[in-house]
Amino acid sequence: MSSLTHFDDAGAPRMVDVSDKAPTRRTARAEAFVRMRPDVIARLAENPKGNPLDIARTAGIMAAKKTADLIPLCHSLPLSNVDVETRTHADGIHIETMAATTAQTGVEMEALTAAAVAALTIYDMTKALDKSIEIATIRLIEKTGGKSGDYRRADTGRE
Amino acid sequence: MSSLTHFDDAGAPRMVDVSDKAPTRRTARAEAFVRMRPDVIARLAENPKGNPLDIARTAGIMAAKKTADLIPLCHSLPLSNVDVETRTHADGIHIETMAATTAQTGVEMEALTAAAVAALTIYDMTKALDKSIEIATIRLIEKTGGKSGDYRRADTGRE
Amino acid sequence: MSSLTHFDDAGAPRMVDVSDKAPTRRTARAEAFVRMRPDVIARLAENPKGNPLDIARTAGIMAAKKTADLIPLCHSLPLSNVDVETRTHADGIHIETMAATTAQTGVEMEALTAAAVAALTIYDMTKALDKSIEIATIRLIEKTGGKSGDYRRADTGRE
Amino acid sequence: MSSLTHFDDAGAPRMVDVSDKAPTRRTARAEAFVRMRPDVIARLAENPKGNPLDIARTAGIMAAKKTADLIPLCHSLPLSNVDVETRTHADGIHIETMAATTAQTGVEMEALTAAAVAALTIYDMTKALDKSIEIATIRLIEKTGGKSGDYRRADTGRE
Amino acid sequence: MSSLTHFDDAGAPRMVDVSDKAPTRRTARAEAFVRMRPDVIARLAENPKGNPLDIARTAGIMAAKKTADLIPLCHSLPLSNVDVETRTHADGIHIETMAATTAQTGVEMEALTAAAVAALTIYDMTKALDKSIEIATIRLIEKTGGKSGDYRRADTGRE
Amino acid sequence: MSSLTHFDDAGAPRMVDVSDKAPTRRTARAEAFVRMRPDVIARLAENPKGNPLDIARTAGIMAAKKTADLIPLCHSLPLSNVDVETRTHADGIHIETMAATTAQTGVEMEALTAAAVAALTIYDMTKALDKSIEIATIRLIEKTGGKSGDYRRADTGRE
Repeated sequence: MSSLTHFDDAGAPRMVDVSDKAPTRRTARAEAFVRMRPDVIARLAENPKGNPLDIARTAGIMAAKKTADLIPLCHSLPLSNVDVETRTHADGIHIETMAATTAQTGVEMEALTAAAVAALTIYDMTKALDKSIEIATIRLIEKTGGKSGDYRRADTGRE
Repeated sequence: MSSLTHFDDAGAPRMVDVSDKAPTRRTARAEAFVRMRPDVIARLAENPKGNPLDIARTAGIMAAKKTADLIPLCHSLPLSNVDVETRTHADGIHIETMAATTAQTGVEMEALTAAAVAALTIYDMTKALDKSIEIATIRLIEKTGGKSGDYRRADTGRE
Repeated sequence: MSSLTHFDDAGAPRMVDVSDKAPTRRTARAEAFVRMRPDVIARLAENPKGNPLDIARTAGIMAAKKTADLIPLCHSLPLSNVDVETRTHADGIHIETMAATTAQTGVEMEALTAAAVAALTIYDMTKALDKSIEIATIRLIEKTGGKSGDYRRADTGRE
Repeated sequence: MSSLTHFDDAGAPRMVDVSDKAPTRRTARAEAFVRMRPDVIARLAENPKGNPLDIARTAGIMAAKKTADLIPLCHSLPLSNVDVETRTHADGIHIETMAATTAQTGVEMEALTAAAVAALTIYDMTKALDKSIEIATIRLIEKTGGKSGDYRRADTGRE
Repeated sequence: MSSLTHFDDAGAPRMVDVSDKAPTRRTARAEAFVRMRPDVIARLAENPKGNPLDIARTAGIMAAKKTADLIPLCHSLPLSNVDVETRTHADGIHIETMAATTAQTGVEMEALTAAAVAALTIYDMTKALDKSIEIATIRLIEKTGGKSGDYRRADTGRE
Repeated sequence: MSSLTHFDDAGAPRMVDVSDKAPTRRTARAEAFVRMRPDVIARLAENPKGNPLDIARTAGIMAAKKTADLIPLCHSLPLSNVDVETRTHADGIHIETMAATTAQTGVEMEALTAAAVAALTIYDMTKALDKSIEIATIRLIEKTGGKSGDYRRADTGRE
């Protein structure tokens, strides 16, 4: 079993050294689900000039670029692509994100951070209507590229 | 039913105007749960100089201070207190956060952002061991202060 | 005539000392105009889920919160309100912003920074269509509050 | 006519995917003009240890590095060079900036952001003398590199 | 002897709770010394439009505003004043900073952070001439305000 | 003798143009020493869940990633590795940092900034016990890579 790569032999935390890795193309997709009451969901679409989901998508994209600023041992990466989609369900909002780079390390954290901040933004903009709104899941759907190989979660989120 | 306060009469997004509110004491508590396999949990405590949960708590506190930078329509607040606790369970890590201020608006988003970033940090530091780790819940436990009154979730998280 | 307040007696730059001022209510309004060809303007409205002006408004609000991070001698302020409006004209987009606080110093720079970043965002999202797009004006419309009194520009922008 | 590249087929905003582009050398030059009264201009040079234009140049360089943090759909880039020059005219200050990189996408936004923030900084440091100071133009002068080819504005600013 | 206030009863790190303190006027002064060879010092003054010390002062002021972003358990504060002075000696550059606020907690870290970043900036701009340049001291000179009372170091730096 | 590379021929500050340099592997190591009384040092280890040195190491790593945001003319770099170690001595805490990249310019400032912020963090968390704590030295130990060749300080810090 592999070790906790963020700690050195003495157990002190460190950024993982990626100096000897070649930059390769890497992608990641993540998802989040914001559970809310149907009457709150119905209010989202009422605004003629936009709705909270637009702002949440923008917030998610911007947050992906700040990942290394938030997660202590995460490397800064030049992202070549970030996308955040939202889909409205009967019981909440499903968020799906993707991030891509050509770098020495992967973009899982960027995709997950985009999903988390998009979800928090939806919460912020609807919390006056319902405080019991809950972010029900944040997880990786898929990653490609890198030494550890591709990964795809067996039980993916709602489509 | 109250309206979506982040939109003006024409439906354009705006920060909620809190100019006429008096600064009062406000607190919020939030929680997150990071679900992981028992064998991954067992690895967390192995490090002599610290473990990922220490770093996650620090990351959560720092993230609370960046909330207004991440959530587009959130006000900047001078936080008088932030605390992040973690508790190890058989099936994952429970995170509980609190934030406090004396201000014109509440600190729910600060407590939730601290919980989300602490959870993402735990994910980052254990993902080499298990990619199926999942952030299972992020939600408000309690808030006090402010015009809308106190709130406490009926079904709180694990203790 | 008043002096350059950002310099001390020896001519060294400094933040203006506002320690002895009482916090009072202050507002500012600013405007910017992004001049572009009619055929580019016609493309803005084509998107079913939103258009560049929505994203520009969000970017302007977020930038207002970063003003003290961008302008070296500007004080950090807790903004109680920020609003960014856009209006489409035959020859471009008019942006109008407002910012408000209860603080020891004014919010002119916050309103102007919101206008500048909203304008730059519109440029970014349309530049593939026309590189000659130009930000034609950024200026203060009005300020209220503070020792120096209220101010309103004689020749305001387009309505 | 090319399409709005910041939107996907469904009209949702996205960062433009540059994954398949090769990194090449790219430069951009931009300009801004801050219009102010001659008596205010005369005050700028009075300080023995420096003047607002020095601080504005530093602010412009620092802002270029924050471009992706301010403009929602802008990529982070490793800038290899940034320069900000100011020139004093009878009716105001002319700012000229340049940015360079070797990357998958261009640096127009970095040059424009440097110009905008340098101009806002001059405004901030002179506004106590004259509130009618106005940022009269911010625009691209020239860009080189990249698939869309070189560009040079026909009518450039003051020299 | 007082306890480590940044840890709770269980030893977990936390931000110190200042909720019950009244906002009062607080100031702090700090200093740093950058030791460098006389021939390097002689080069600093050669530039007609400014010198590294001007840029270092600006960097120090901007860094004071970022203190809570850098120091994990430090509170965000609205600074009412920041000043950074430099003085050239035969064997190096002496930096003296001051910060002031009206808040629930003190500004020692803001004054020290300004001194540290001003010193690092001088190092950055002279390191091509001499890599043995050294930041010889960073320390608090004085603080006023707050429950723990005023403090003034017995042996202050160079004047 | 080489010139001040951060200034152009006219003496105006500029970022050093590294456009023509090839990206190569570069490393730097730096150190800082925080001098404190033995009774304060004795308190550091008392906490069951962690101590200030853990938090300082995390703060140092995060600060390395913010170097270009703090130091005006410093380039943004994708760091491939950052490490911060602390060692307890009878009269204080010795901090040693390292940073690595494959880039067009070196990482001395990243290693030094990590050392400075780790030292400031230790100060912050112990200042309630002793205000005379002092950051006694911040300096480069070693650098490798780049056109100017390798460097190693003759008189290194404590081991």
